[in-house]
This record gives sequence, C-alpha cells and structure tokens, in this order.
Amino acid sequence: MLKIGIMGSTGYAGEELIRILLRHPEVKISVLSAKIERPQNIQGLFPWLSGRLDLPCEDLSPEKIEKNCDLVFLALPHKVSMEVAPIFLEANKKVIDLSADYRLRDPAVYEKSYNTKHKTSKYIKEAVYGLPEVYREKIKKARLIANPGCYPTGIILGCLPPLEKGLLESFIICDSKSGVSGAGRCPAPGLMLGELENSFKAYKVNVHQHASEIEQELNNFSKSPVNLVFVPHLVPMKRGILSTIYLRTKSKVSTEEALEIYRKFYKRESFIRILNKDILPDTKFVAHTNYCDIGIRAFPDIKILIVITAIDNLMKGASGQAVQNMNIMCGFEETLGLL
Amino acid sequence: MLKIGIMGSTGYAGEELIRILLRHPEVKISVLSAKIERPQNIQGLFPWLSGRLDLPCEDLSPEKIEKNCDLVFLALPHKVSMEVAPIFLEANKKVIDLSADYRLRDPAVYEKSYNTKHKTSKYIKEAVYGLPEVYREKIKKARLIANPGCYPTGIILGCLPPLEKGLLESFIICDSKSGVSGAGRCPAPGLMLGELENSFKAYKVNVHQHASEIEQELNNFSKSPVNLVFVPHLVPMKRGILSTIYLRTKSKVSTEEALEIYRKFYKRESFIRILNKDILPDTKFVAHTNYCDIGIRAFPDIKILIVITAIDNLMKGASGQAVQNMNIMCGFEETLGLL
Amino acid sequence: MLKIGIMGSTGYAGEELIRILLRHPEVKISVLSAKIERPQNIQGLFPWLSGRLDLPCEDLSPEKIEKNCDLVFLALPHKVSMEVAPIFLEANKKVIDLSADYRLRDPAVYEKSYNTKHKTSKYIKEAVYGLPEVYREKIKKARLIANPGCYPTGIILGCLPPLEKGLLESFIICDSKSGVSGAGRCPAPGLMLGELENSFKAYKVNVHQHASEIEQELNNFSKSPVNLVFVPHLVPMKRGILSTIYLRTKSKVSTEEALEIYRKFYKRESFIRILNKDILPDTKFVAHTNYCDIGIRAFPDIKILIVITAIDNLMKGASGQAVQNMNIMCGFEETLGLL
Amino acid sequence: MLKIGIMGSTGYAGEELIRILLRHPEVKISVLSAKIERPQNIQGLFPWLSGRLDLPCEDLSPEKIEKNCDLVFLALPHKVSMEVAPIFLEANKKVIDLSADYRLRDPAVYEKSYNTKHKTSKYIKEAVYGLPEVYREKIKKARLIANPGCYPTGIILGCLPPLEKGLLESFIICDSKSGVSGAGRCPAPGLMLGELENSFKAYKVNVHQHASEIEQELNNFSKSPVNLVFVPHLVPMKRGILSTIYLRTKSKVSTEEALEIYRKFYKRESFIRILNKDILPDTKFVAHTNYCDIGIRAFPDIKILIVITAIDNLMKGASGQAVQNMNIMCGFEETLGLL
Repeated sequence: MLKIGIMGSTGYAGEELIRILLRHPEVKISVLSAKIERPQNIQGLFPWLSGRLDLPCEDLSPEKIEKNCDLVFLALPHKVSMEVAPIFLEANKKVIDLSADYRLRDPAVYEKSYNTKHKTSKYIKEAVYGLPEVYREKIKKARLIANPGCYPTGIILGCLPPLEKGLLESFIICDSKSGVSGAGRCPAPGLMLGELENSFKAYKVNVHQHASEIEQELNNFSKSPVNLVFVPHLVPMKRGILSTIYLRTKSKVSTEEALEIYRKFYKRESFIRILNKDILPDTKFVAHTNYCDIGIRAFPDIKILIVITAIDNLMKGASGQAVQNMNIMCGFEETLGLL
Repeated sequence: MLKIGIMGSTGYAGEELIRILLRHPEVKISVLSAKIERPQNIQGLFPWLSGRLDLPCEDLSPEKIEKNCDLVFLALPHKVSMEVAPIFLEANKKVIDLSADYRLRDPAVYEKSYNTKHKTSKYIKEAVYGLPEVYREKIKKARLIANPGCYPTGIILGCLPPLEKGLLESFIICDSKSGVSGAGRCPAPGLMLGELENSFKAYKVNVHQHASEIEQELNNFSKSPVNLVFVPHLVPMKRGILSTIYLRTKSKVSTEEALEIYRKFYKRESFIRILNKDILPDTKFVAHTNYCDIGIRAFPDIKILIVITAIDNLMKGASGQAVQNMNIMCGFEETLGLL
Repeated sequence: MLKIGIMGSTGYAGEELIRILLRHPEVKISVLSAKIERPQNIQGLFPWLSGRLDLPCEDLSPEKIEKNCDLVFLALPHKVSMEVAPIFLEANKKVIDLSADYRLRDPAVYEKSYNTKHKTSKYIKEAVYGLPEVYREKIKKARLIANPGCYPTGIILGCLPPLEKGLLESFIICDSKSGVSGAGRCPAPGLMLGELENSFKAYKVNVHQHASEIEQELNNFSKSPVNLVFVPHLVPMKRGILSTIYLRTKSKVSTEEALEIYRKFYKRESFIRILNKDILPDTKFVAHTNYCDIGIRAFPDIKILIVITAIDNLMKGASGQAVQNMNIMCGFEETLGLL
Repeated sequence: MLKIGIMGSTGYAGEELIRILLRHPEVKISVLSAKIERPQNIQGLFPWLSGRLDLPCEDLSPEKIEKNCDLVFLALPHKVSMEVAPIFLEANKKVIDLSADYRLRDPAVYEKSYNTKHKTSKYIKEAVYGLPEVYREKIKKARLIANPGCYPTGIILGCLPPLEKGLLESFIICDSKSGVSGAGRCPAPGLMLGELENSFKAYKVNVHQHASEIEQELNNFSKSPVNLVFVPHLVPMKRGILSTIYLRTKSKVSTEEALEIYRKFYKRESFIRILNKDILPDTKFVAHTNYCDIGIRAFPDIKILIVITAIDNLMKGASGQAVQNMNIMCGFEETLGLL
C-alpha cells in the first residue's frame, strides 16, 4: 500500500482527494496536514467522514509529513507550494502539486501572472505538466507533477485536436463558467449563498492568471502564436466548469468532420467523452466524475467551430486529475479509484 | 420630509431599509454610517443603487449622525446598539433599534441570553417592543423602539390569539426554519454557497437567544407560564422564516373555530393574512413583503392545533417592521412604503 | 385611470405585469385572462396577491376582454398572439404583444424562425419594435407594439453604440446566459430543481430563434451585414440574463474611448447604466428592476472589445419593457411604476 | 454474478439503483424497464452513464423481465407494484419493492392511506418490512421486501431506542423536511426551480400517507399506542431528509443517558451514526451515502428529548436501503456497494 500525505487537507481539493483515495485499493492516507489552529481529528472537520477515516489533522512541517508518506499531494495556495515541494523532492518523495507554482515553464511569465518571484525555479525544469492526455509518457517518469488548473484543463482539451492539425485561425475565444468551489473554501463575501441569489457575473475579464497557462500549452501545439481571449464567469452552483470555445477554421469544416478529428485524437482516452450530435455537455453529467465531456457544433458557411467542454472542477479540474497522475506515476491502472 | 439616518447601512437589514425608504414618500435618507475602512459612495457598496441614491457611507460617530437626522435606525449588532442609542435619545431624536438590546425587560435575562451586562439599562424602561399588532398605542408615543427579533415576530404572532383566550396548555413547540440572511452578511464558512449544497440542519437546539424574548411576550398574555421548546433550522435559501408551531388545546378546537379566533384577533391588521383552509403558508408568498401569513390546521380529536407562520425575515422580521414602527411613531399611514 | 387587460396572466410575464401595474398610479388592471380550466380568483393562483388584488381570472375570448380595457398586454405564446392581436386593433385598443409574432419585418424570416406561416402579416407593417432606446418616437404613435425578446434586448443594447458609429468588424459573438424563468412556467423535466443541481449547459447552439431578431436590428444600424454567432446557456437560477459580447474593432479602441461612446449614446436614457471601470455587471444588480447594465473592457492591442450586459429577463427583457412602452404610448412619464 | 432487473429505471430511485449497483462487485444489471414511449439506450436517458453502462431501456412486461434476472427492484409508483410483484414471486425471483404496496400489514389501513383496494393482499403476509436495523433476521429469509418509505426510515430509527425501553409518553411530534427529489422526477409546477426561489413550506399537514406506516412500526415497539403528529416540509434542495422529533420522557433523561441508550441499541449497525454532543446532523453529511445520522439533545427539567435524524432520501430512504436489503437476502456483506 502506497502511503499518501496531503498538505492542505481542509480545502475543497484536499477534501476531494480524501474522498477519492478512500475508494482507491492501492493506497492508504497516512498523514493529513492543514493550516489549522489546533490538531483535530479529520472527522471533526468533515463529519461525513465519521466511521470512514480516523486520522488526526494538524499543522505539520513538511519534514514531519515527509517521514510518513511515499507520495504527497500539495493542495496548497499558489506561492506556498514552491516553498515546500523541494523538501519532499529532496527526501525522494513523489510530489503532485495542485497549485500553479510549477505549471509555467518560464519564471518570468510566472512572476507576471502571480505577482511574485519564483523562489525555487530550478525545479520547474523537472516538473511535468500533468495533463495525461498530452504528457502521459513524461508523467510515468516524473517525480514532480504540476497538476493543471481547472479552466486550462477543459479549454486545452477542447482546443488541441484541431489546433494540432493546423486547422485553426489564431483567434481563440473562451467563455468559461465555473461553480463557486473553484474559488476555494475560504470565506469571502461574494461567495455567500445570500449574495448569490439570481447572481451571474463575469470576473477578471481577459486578465485571469490562468490565461498564460492556457497560452503556453496551446502554443506548444500551434505553428503560429495563438491569440487567446478568456473570460471566466461565476455560476451560482457548487461544482462544474463549462467552457464555450469559439474557434475559426481556415477552411470549411463540418460537424461530422470535426467529431471525427476529436474521436481519433482521443480514441485511447478513458476520461474523454466526445458526445454525439444529439446531445450537448452539461456540467451535471460530469459532476463527481473525472470525465471531460466535449460537444461540437460546426458552422462551415461562416467557418466557425463551437466546442463546448464540461468538467467537474474538483475532479478532472483538480483532485481527480491529480489521482489520475498518481496512478500513472506509480504504475497503477490509470482509472483506479476514479470510476 | 423626515430626515433619516441609518447606522449599520451595509448589513442586510441596513440594505433593506434603504430599499424600503427609497419608495417612502415622506422621508429622505440623509446620512449613512457603517463600520467600513474608508468612506465610499453607497453605490460602490451596493451597485444596484446606481442612479437611485447618491450618498456617502462612512464610519461616523453617533454625534455626527445625530446632527443630520430626525430619526435613526440602528441596524447594529447586539451590544453595540446600547452604547449609541442613548446619545440619540439625549439629542431628542427618535430611535428604532433593530438589535436585541432593548427588547428584554429584565436586564438579568438580557445578561443571561447575550452573555454581557447591559450598560444602559435605565433606557430599557422607556423602550417599547415594536410589535404593532400588540403595542400600537405605546409605539405612537415612543421615542425608543426595540424592534422585535425575526423568529419572535413570526412565533408570537402565531401564538397570541388562542393564548390570550386561555385556550392553550403550557407546552408550545416551535420548529422554525430560516433562510441564511438571518445570520447576517458577515462571511462565515457555514454560509457559503459551496457549503450549503443539499444542506439542511438544526442549530442552537432549544438554546437560541431569541427564546427568552418569545417567552417574555407570550407570558405577558398567558395566565400560566408558558413552556417553550424552540428549535431553529437553516434553509439553503436567502430569505424567509417559516415557523411550524405545535399547540395543545385544553378542549377540542376545530380548524374553523381556530380560523375564526385568528381572524377576529387580527381583523384590523394590514399585514396579517389568515390563509384559507385550502392553502398553506409558503415563504415565497411573503418574500419582499411586510406580511405575516398564518395557516391553521386543528386536530380536535387529539387536541392539537398546528399553526404555521411565514414572514420575510428582512421585512416583517426586521426592516419592514422597523419602517412600520416609524410610520406609527411619526403619524404616517402605517402601510406607507410597505405595499 | 387607463383600464388594462392581460391575456396570459398566469405565466411569468403575466405575473410580472400584475406586480408592476399594481404600483402604477395611472392604470387599473380591469380584466385577466388565461388558459385555465375553470374561472378562479387571481389570488388563488398567486397567493402573494392576497389582500392586494381581487379579480377573477378566466379563459376569455378576445372580444370579451376588449370590451373591458383600453389597452391589452398579450403575454401569450408565439403563434397565438397573431390570432388575437387584430381583434383588439380593430376595436381600436392599444396592443402590446410580448410574443415574437410582430417582431420580424419579413414574414419569410418569421416563417423560417418559428416554423409557421404568419397568419396576419398585414399588421406587421404597423407594428413598432418596442425598444424605447431606439424607436421612442415611433412608439409614441404606435397602436401595436412588438415587445422585444429577452436575449435581443440585452444584446442589441450592448452592440448599438459602436456598431452605429461603424467601428466594428462584421463578426459578433454573443455568449448569453439566462435564468430558468426565460423558459416559461410550463412544467418541463429539464427545469425542475432536482434536475438542475450543478447543472450549467448551452442549448440551441447558434440556432436559437432569437438570432434573426437580433440580426434584423443590428443590420438596421450597420453598413455591412453583421455575422452573428449566438449561443444561449441555462443558469440554475430564476431570473436574469447576462450576455458576454465579443466584438472586433476596425481600429484600436481603449476602454475609456469605448465608455465615452456608450455614455454619449445613452446619455438621456433612464434605464441604461454604463458601469464604471471598477465594476462589472451582475444579474443580481438588475434583478426586479428595468435597468440594463453595461460593462466594457477593451483590449486595443488585439482590437477586441468585450461588452457585458445584464438585464432581468422578466423586467427589461419582457414585462418591465412592456410597461415602459405603455408609458410612452400613453403619454405617461416613461419611468412610472418602474422605479 | 447475480442478475438484476430494475422496473422504473428512469425515476430518481431507479437512477440511484443503477449508480449503486454499478459499483457492486457481486451483481450485474441485466435488464432495465421503464414506462417510456420507445426503447432507448439508458445512456440516452442518463448521459452521465456514457462509457459506464450500455443497456437498452424499454417498456417491458414483467414476464419478459423475469426471464432475464434473479432479483428485481420495483422502483414503481404505489398501486403499480402490487400488480407486478406476484408475477416475479411466482417465477421464484426475489423482489424488493420500493413502493408502499406491501408495507402496511393491514389491507384496510392501506386502503385508507392510499385510497385504493389492495389487489394482491395475500402476499402482504410474506412481505418483510425492509428495515435491517429491526428485521434483519427476517430479511435474510425473505422473498419479498417492502422497502420502507423515506420519512418512516428516519423517524422510526430516531424513535425506537427510547420507545422500546418504555421511556416515552405517547405524544410524538415529527417535524420533517425533505429535498424535492422525494416527490419524484415527474414534472410538476411546484417543483420547478423557478417556483422554489425563497420557498419553504409545509404540506399534507398531519395527513401524509406515511403516517400510518410510521405508526404501525412504532406501535410494534410500544406498550401503549403512540400518538403521532407528523408534518412534512419541502426544502429547496435536491436530496436529504432531516426530521426533528420532539419526545416527552416519563422521567428525567439527560443527554448523556440518552446517547448511551442510542449507542447501545445501534452498536452493531454499520449505517447508523450517533453523533457526539458537539455536533448536529446535517443532510449534507449523509448526502450520497447510506448513513442515518442521529443527534440528541435532552432537556431533563422539562422532560423533553429532541432527536434529530438525517438521511439521504434516495439512499437510506430508498435505493441504498434496497441494496442493503439485497445484500442481506443474498448473503453478501451488508455494506457491499454502499461505502
């Protein structure tokens, strides 16, 4: 049994990791840490765990955690992960970092996106961007996984097939909508139920920090630089991200042709579902699952391809994908604990 | 035009006061105060006010507020009101206090319920409990109104008619359910939308601080002391309180007889609606209104009378009732601004 | 007092009309009709009206309704309005039609969009498209108003200022999100609360019937034909539409310049609010109001202008705008009953 | 592998059965039936099943279903089950009936509660009431399980321990609150999201059909007849039932004593969690699980015991309990597929 540590156990991603790992036959959660004032049994923090997991949770140093686990998930805020990840790596532990700290290849881009200097940039080089559909082979050999952001996951998976084939014009417009859990569990006025009645809004219009991550990955696959426009919105529900992606194609492409391209690209993937023409993605179809559903509508007359992707932001957009990465790194079946 | 000041403008009760007073033809909001870090136009805090109210909001001393108003609403936390109310009274201004500070006649009961000594208890005597259906004549002459709590309003109005007639046994069980705005706007983990999915729960089971207020008022009308059991619950919605009240009658009472008693008791009231037998109260019927809807089902065989009351906790349960009190105190038509 | 009839009183638009007209000082609701099995007091259908409106509602012929009103609102399904509107017109009554039946100038476009031949197309010519910000002068003299659709209202108002100035490239991408009341009150599986948990989805991707209405109006103001891409989505909340509109400008336009253009264009309008740079539209800011809020973010480097508009689909998107049109037609102050 | 048939596959209980059984290692869903117009793959009805279950669903006769399964779940409306259950029994198949048809021992009570004569009352005698915590031994040998109602499950489990010990006075007041999925998936005006904003209400006040089921089971354990008062309410959320139960004790009982009684009574139960004094049940703690959480607060001075129970109405209140019963009947581990 692989021994697992979780730093940041009390956030949404941490809680979801616990939920998934409890059903995973090859691992055992051995140590839980979180920034809490006094040690507490995890059942006191998450009463739904009563009778299912009996483990203390406390504010532990990375050194203490490291001794009790083979692999650690860092479900920490940006800027905190980069301070602790190296400690685990140097102790020869596998690290899956759910923050943004090792996602961007270029420290200067990181600094611009997150307003802070990267303190352990020498580790960026060995970090692997944990999108299995793209980097599976590298993930197998990785020690440090930079688990993708929630918005980037759904958007990159939605754009790659036609982009990689060189079918697209440079402008890519992504209109994304996320449930509130994407903003984390930390109390904030705008996330209270009383403030969200009949409330739907855009935020960080084309200035969201995930844009650079999306651009980096799309440009990896595109001959000419991509022009990304990215507008995220907040939906008054707990989980799910739906991204409506507006692509212009260089030549006329029909829905059937587009579907064929996507099906081929993802034909060996367990967690990508290309939906038939008679149905459209809905975040509820992927809620609590690790699937990314993709729906496609082409309008060849105006050379427009509309791609809609849906994920559960806490699963394929965070903890589910993290476990998928763990499975790949550790030689487990990729879907273990995730179906 | 009566000049109105509001202390605590940024909470739910304060916001609701602004909403109501903007439609009131006899008053003008002249000064807004709140515990905020820097002065800000109220439109910046409540963008829905754009084009409707152009007024600064800042953290003002009672002395400054007093100079600019004839009447002040204190939409302040418990324990804060009692420190500022006297300042207004001594400046000869009318005060409507939405906190609990002057509701309890006995300072010892206040101390027990709110864990603090009452600092200005000499003003309790002149405070009038602002339930117009009961104390209208006193309200007319009052300078200081103790505006009733949200739970007490619905429960007292639901119990009084048969209680006053001496029809009830002493046990009164009140099972109340409130939307989240009852807990105020201050960010708290348990009130976030992400925490309230499929969440319904009881809290402060029979130890809620409103119990002493309910008991005080019911005992005023009852020959023998009332035995109150009061359990509040949290509903995952913004506004509304529904109270299901289980009463035992000394003799058999039919639904028709009970309806007759209630209709008679409230026959001159503008804001009490006794519902017909074919319909039951629903918080949505009273949302954004100052009504208290009352539904009644009697089971004479077992001498049980079930009374269900619904109010909007921010209206009849707070700001609507406060304005109703203002209307009475100032000689305006009682329903002004409230229909 | 102007006597008002409402056909389709029991749908969301009908209910909202009642709500607004009850506060309107110059009119009196005199007759209510709806497709219901047996006559019923409107209070039985809408218990929130108890004590506020005492009027029967029944399935009346247009002839009967016409005799009891000066002006009629048709809150009817598409295809039904065109059968009854002429009866009112011929009896010399004013008609405000909330359906799509008289919005499209070209009967062939109507036929294509709504899959039915227009039966009374000779009245199309005299119908005025009821968007006061554009057609106020014509509305003053109109007998028949084609009240705009909910999506078109927010989108047209968001596009007009730069379009009319010739600043835009032909492609206009509108990503709209609507609360469920836009789909009407008729029970449908997909609109049940139990089906909408964590549910967000697109529907009628670029094939929604409102597209032709939007194109018609935008093309009226554009020198070159507009290429509209329109994708509506369903938000799990009751009311509100937010449209995120992606415009490409021919030359570089800054946010300040764009704001200036919008402010100038709408400077005399009571119901258009151009938001400052530090705030973005939120459907909750316009809920229960007749406002259309507009937020703007320009990205001159890539010549992209993102315009975000928010309306309450039942107010500015339906009944509020209908009353605004009534006010204009009847010489009342335009904001009467709407503030 | 046990072959499973499900009648009523498209309702909430049927869908939940599919969800659970897909994770169950000892069974295989072999036939799905539902009242639908034309045969359809179950993935078309529940897109979340894409890639997980590939099976047709059609309107099959019991005879056809029976040939393809060893055990059948009847997730059918009341009155339908009693017509088909005998067909399976006579073909020697095990039957778990989620309807009310075989729950009431006395056909006259059934007739009164459900307004219909029982057509196959001779099978009532061999039906076992499927509450494992009470009837486990009988369930082991049963061919026909009458799976308990959702409200009765939570209420009976909450009352039994002190009732069986003879500690209670006869009056038992149950104030229950249910999410909307309890009303089924069939479209109804009152269950639409647009109708449930700020909506909380009671319904069937003390006349709900589940009352007779609760009374039957409580009276089995009580020396003197129980006087039940039962008021159900509708919560604007999808799943979960919380019941607040007001019990009067004959003598003074403290919270500690009560907790001890409950812990002892349920000490071998896997799905009953008696919560500590510092926490109260919340429907979200049991959502998507088969647990029944029980919280207790005693007020010895007034001899009141308040018991609060929470279940997921689709799990312990329906399909989860049905699978628990299957496990017991078939000799599987009782928690299989349910943790």
